[in-house]
Amino acid sequence: MLCIAAAQLGIQTVTVERKANCPAAAVSHLHQVGDWNDPAVLRQLAAQADVVTLENEFVNAETLAILETENVRILPSSECLRTIQDKLIQKEALQTAGLPTPCFRATDSSDELQEAGSEFGYPFVLKRRRNGYDGKGNITIKTAQDLKTGWAVLDGDNHPLFAEEFCPFKAEIAVMVCRSSSGQTVVYPVVETVQKEHICHIVKAPAAIPASTSAQAIRIATDAVSSVKGIGSIGVELFLTQDDQIVVNELAPRVHNSGHYTIEACHTSQFENHIRAVLGLPLGNPDLIEPAAVMINLLGDAAGPSYPSGVCEAMKVDGAHLHLYGKDQSQFGRKMGHLTVTGNSMESVMSRAESAAKKITFA
Amino acid sequence: MLCIAAAQLGIQTVTVERKANCPAAAVSHLHQVGDWNDPAVLRQLAAQADVVTLENEFVNAETLAILETENVRILPSSECLRTIQDKLIQKEALQTAGLPTPCFRATDSSDELQEAGSEFGYPFVLKRRRNGYDGKGNITIKTAQDLKTGWAVLDGDNHPLFAEEFCPFKAEIAVMVCRSSSGQTVVYPVVETVQKEHICHIVKAPAAIPASTSAQAIRIATDAVSSVKGIGSIGVELFLTQDDQIVVNELAPRVHNSGHYTIEACHTSQFENHIRAVLGLPLGNPDLIEPAAVMINLLGDAAGPSYPSGVCEAMKVDGAHLHLYGKDQSQFGRKMGHLTVTGNSMESVMSRAESAAKKITFA
Repeated sequence: MLCIAAAQLGIQTVTVERKANCPAAAVSHLHQVGDWNDPAVLRQLAAQADVVTLENEFVNAETLAILETENVRILPSSECLRTIQDKLIQKEALQTAGLPTPCFRATDSSDELQEAGSEFGYPFVLKRRRNGYDGKGNITIKTAQDLKTGWAVLDGDNHPLFAEEFCPFKAEIAVMVCRSSSGQTVVYPVVETVQKEHICHIVKAPAAIPASTSAQAIRIATDAVSSVKGIGSIGVELFLTQDDQIVVNELAPRVHNSGHYTIEACHTSQFENHIRAVLGLPLGNPDLIEPAAVMINLLGDAAGPSYPSGVCEAMKVDGAHLHLYGKDQSQFGRKMGHLTVTGNSMESVMSRAESAAKKITFA
Repeated sequence: MLCIAAAQLGIQTVTVERKANCPAAAVSHLHQVGDWNDPAVLRQLAAQADVVTLENEFVNAETLAILETENVRILPSSECLRTIQDKLIQKEALQTAGLPTPCFRATDSSDELQEAGSEFGYPFVLKRRRNGYDGKGNITIKTAQDLKTGWAVLDGDNHPLFAEEFCPFKAEIAVMVCRSSSGQTVVYPVVETVQKEHICHIVKAPAAIPASTSAQAIRIATDAVSSVKGIGSIGVELFLTQDDQIVVNELAPRVHNSGHYTIEACHTSQFENHIRAVLGLPLGNPDLIEPAAVMINLLGDAAGPSYPSGVCEAMKVDGAHLHLYGKDQSQFGRKMGHLTVTGNSMESVMSRAESAAKKITFA
């Protein structure tokens, strides 16, 4: 989706991925197959580009830092990535910036893990510091009896872990902030995200929250992105707590699933604004065009081809915008596409989006 | 733009063009370099695809007909292309279908050309039957003294010509009709097109015409597309005459410059609907999202690079959606991109579109 946004602006892209037949290969000018953590691969990529950007947060910040010493322009920077990709360091940075987060602490040993249990009470959440996503690398510790199992499941001996208080929330909300290398910042509407099995399932734009809560979420998200020196579209996931407080859950230093709805629903998509931001071009209007939008993720139902059944039926639903990623194959739970419906009322767009999504099966 | 629409729907594309570095190459899954009139080249393309479609009307219908005998699915069909690509045959087909056109006649010899002058009076228009576009292949014969020169300029000895009465129009309007291989038809709003040096310069959606005129234009356009058995997005160019009559100027059997505004301005673009139509998928809503849209073509000012100056300034204009095609190089008058502005009033979108377009220079 980033490559498509670039192509429309007449910007050429070179992509690197481990596979030849990945979705980006089809829509980029050049595609390079290789390991994105191999400095030689990144060096070859960088040699062809004026600016390097990322659409995942797993590229090793140290590798990127090496390239920066060779005058490669990387946005967001290795410094930003280094802060965000270690979730403990990310939380510390947010705390240092005075931003609200759930309480957390390092758990470098099973002794420290027990201390976390005493400090936070049960349940609390144990997380890998790096490479977690969609609930992978997280586990809820319900009682002291789970401590040993939790440590083993997340392989705490080989992967640094940290603990976080359990945060009973009313809703998960998210804000996409786009910050340009020239200093301009635009903020997309606050959205509500509904997860299913820890994976983003539905995004509702705008979130049904009071204007003051929305303004607070926007302030916090904007400050969070500045605090990590984020450049480009940066997703900020927030919890709205039972007592209407907002705390930062985590940042995604890239275009984000909670912002896919912006393609049809906003004057300028998170993808186009990301491209503009890393090139230092003026950012476009992030506002909604129509009053309501719903995005639903389309996940693989089983192993099978990447093109689903039910496309015809889904397209018959008024205003259903279907996006199919053309990944190499479907797997259970794999994000294979999404669909967006926009319109005048949340009730109508939600019912149409759900009705369209139900038709699609990947198997 | 067609390839991008296909990619978003998870549809893989293979393109053929004479150059390796053409815009489509960057956004198609596979790109084949070759002459689109060479049956061997088209056969190779067709072997990789479930359906073949076109984004220009110059591919020889006879070559396409050969492929159809080999069971290649081509939409629109060679029959449709054969009718449209010879403008005399196209006019005859429209006339047979009872649709209003300016008077016309074949001029296979200079004798017949003189007869045309007597029949239509002066001025009248002399046209090549094939391969004309953007005013190329057309000439206005102002007096009997111009007959010989006109014939020579259009090389009537080697290119079949025909004559058409001069049609003094109030406005040029256009309707994009999209007709699916499954029989469904959707019609986009009637737009006004403003030409400059015979090249589409501005498209205003919707055209400022009475509802009854608009309804008549839609009826005529829909019938015109059926009469040539068009499948996919088919552009219908119309004249609104001084006495408020509508006559068909010509058809374009493909996505059309008068429909580029649909990317941002309509619920479903002409490009996505073309892809849906040739695949027999249900068509999407062609209606405007906001009340007004203006598209302005960005033409080359001189020979030079394909990326213009002034992008930053143009992007500062509120709501300016810039499209740069990434052609190999700029040439004077070459279509290098376009921009679209949407909003609540025609006055506001026109002023913003003009202000943004003024910033862009290709030289």
